[in-house]
Amino acid sequence: MIEVSPIAIVGTGLLGGSIGLGLRAVGYAGTIIGVGRRQSTLDKALSHGCVDEVSLDLADAVGRSRLVILATPLGRFAPLLEQIAASDHEQLVVTDVGSTKARVMADARRLLPQPRRFVGSHPMAGSERHGPEHAEADLFDHRPCIVVAEQDTDAPAIEMVSQLWSTLGMRVLRMTAEEHDRKVAAISHLPHALAVLLVELAEEAEALGVASSGFADTTRIAASDPDVWADIFIHNPGGVVEAIDGYMDRLHRFRDVVASGQRERIIDVLARAKHVRDGWASQNP
Amino acid sequence: MIEVSPIAIVGTGLLGGSIGLGLRAVGYAGTIIGVGRRQSTLDKALSHGCVDEVSLDLADAVGRSRLVILATPLGRFAPLLEQIAASDHEQLVVTDVGSTKARVMADARRLLPQPRRFVGSHPMAGSERHGPEHAEADLFDHRPCIVVAEQDTDAPAIEMVSQLWSTLGMRVLRMTAEEHDRKVAAISHLPHALAVLLVELAEEAEALGVASSGFADTTRIAASDPDVWADIFIHNPGGVVEAIDGYMDRLHRFRDVVASGQRERIIDVLARAKHVRDGWASQNP
Repeated sequence: MIEVSPIAIVGTGLLGGSIGLGLRAVGYAGTIIGVGRRQSTLDKALSHGCVDEVSLDLADAVGRSRLVILATPLGRFAPLLEQIAASDHEQLVVTDVGSTKARVMADARRLLPQPRRFVGSHPMAGSERHGPEHAEADLFDHRPCIVVAEQDTDAPAIEMVSQLWSTLGMRVLRMTAEEHDRKVAAISHLPHALAVLLVELAEEAEALGVASSGFADTTRIAASDPDVWADIFIHNPGGVVEAIDGYMDRLHRFRDVVASGQRERIIDVLARAKHVRDGWASQNP
Repeated sequence: MIEVSPIAIVGTGLLGGSIGLGLRAVGYAGTIIGVGRRQSTLDKALSHGCVDEVSLDLADAVGRSRLVILATPLGRFAPLLEQIAASDHEQLVVTDVGSTKARVMADARRLLPQPRRFVGSHPMAGSERHGPEHAEADLFDHRPCIVVAEQDTDAPAIEMVSQLWSTLGMRVLRMTAEEHDRKVAAISHLPHALAVLLVELAEEAEALGVASSGFADTTRIAASDPDVWADIFIHNPGGVVEAIDGYMDRLHRFRDVVASGQRERIIDVLARAKHVRDGWASQNP
């Protein structure tokens, strides 16, 4: 159980709001400060019980807090880190929930006076919805959270941030920023692109009228916030392009397997994927 | 409400079983005969209330029935149509639930003595699970069902089959077999291939350990029965290859948009897809 207090959550949308609700649900006894730019969003977060108090004044909240969590879209991180730098103090640890890590770590190193107290995080949980009204106390429960630190990152800072996520029920995994960006491109950024392009193709084929539950599942993430996802693609072009290239090779091969009409070759591909997917699902209920 | 009786369902798995449960749920008063090759599956269908009686004897069931629904995997259709041909009678209408239509219609024309009483169907509903124990009475409710007939198909047969699906709550759409195979490739067969290849890529990238709910959604259909889907790819190579080719063009373009790092171009693609997906979802709750 994490005990430091107060914790400031900058950005009280779906993710930030769910962190607050989740901490409260497991009995966190400290103070949670919601920080944002819009009073209306903060009021919603407060009325949904996501935070204890709200503030439009980032400098004040940072000055009073032990842990600051950046939970805004990635595109806001750099200006926020600059503001946090101006209110930095020796007791402060900063983390984030961003979906890319190499550029976030580089920004923290460049912009913070003590980047040794910055630890990158990527809790692997989310939804195509947004806003504190969709926050859920168990959003993070049983999901993986990737924690990224540099060689010289303070050990107590890593410990505090890891404890935050394990308090929320997450399985904490340590890796480098580069490993994160490559792996997450494969299981999140590429799938997002695939869903978006599938919607595009279905519309041009005038096939939306016959689409059903399978299409709903495979394209659900295409309903996500375009601004949030544009930031992600901007932040991880290398990982995404590498994943797309690898995927196009596979798609080309599968095209030829289908064109061959050889049942055994088709079965091989499908059975292998089912085996892997079933194994994954049994460990990620 | 469909009133003809008995109705024979050949193949009492998830789809066949759900047809029986659904008919019963909306008050169908006739007799439902479950036909299969394995007594154990038939017994499960009977004990789950999917059918009124069961039979291992297709010829006998066809001889007594007014409507026969083929609900086995596609690969079984040709031998079943041959057997049905031997027991054909003037009161008989035959339909199916197959995921491809051009080859099914051609098989029916070739194998049945009176193909004018065969109407192709594709109820757009399903699940990655199988077996009558996973059948659901409302599986078809509010989903689209594509009905395919030839120029010379008997009008009363088309009417009977359309009524079957509307009795189950489906939105019946008429189209040609070619139009079906092209559109369904875009919204079902291609998405299936994409999900399968995504699982393959994620495994090779050693990224399954960080995969979460988004990955679960986009790859759920990859857990489907490989035999069933091999038949589908074998039956619709033209539609699938055309869809893959169109998709690869889009993927290549998107790769270049990401590599360009131009935020406006990325936003354009994402916002357009969200708009279309949201519109579709609002009409397909």
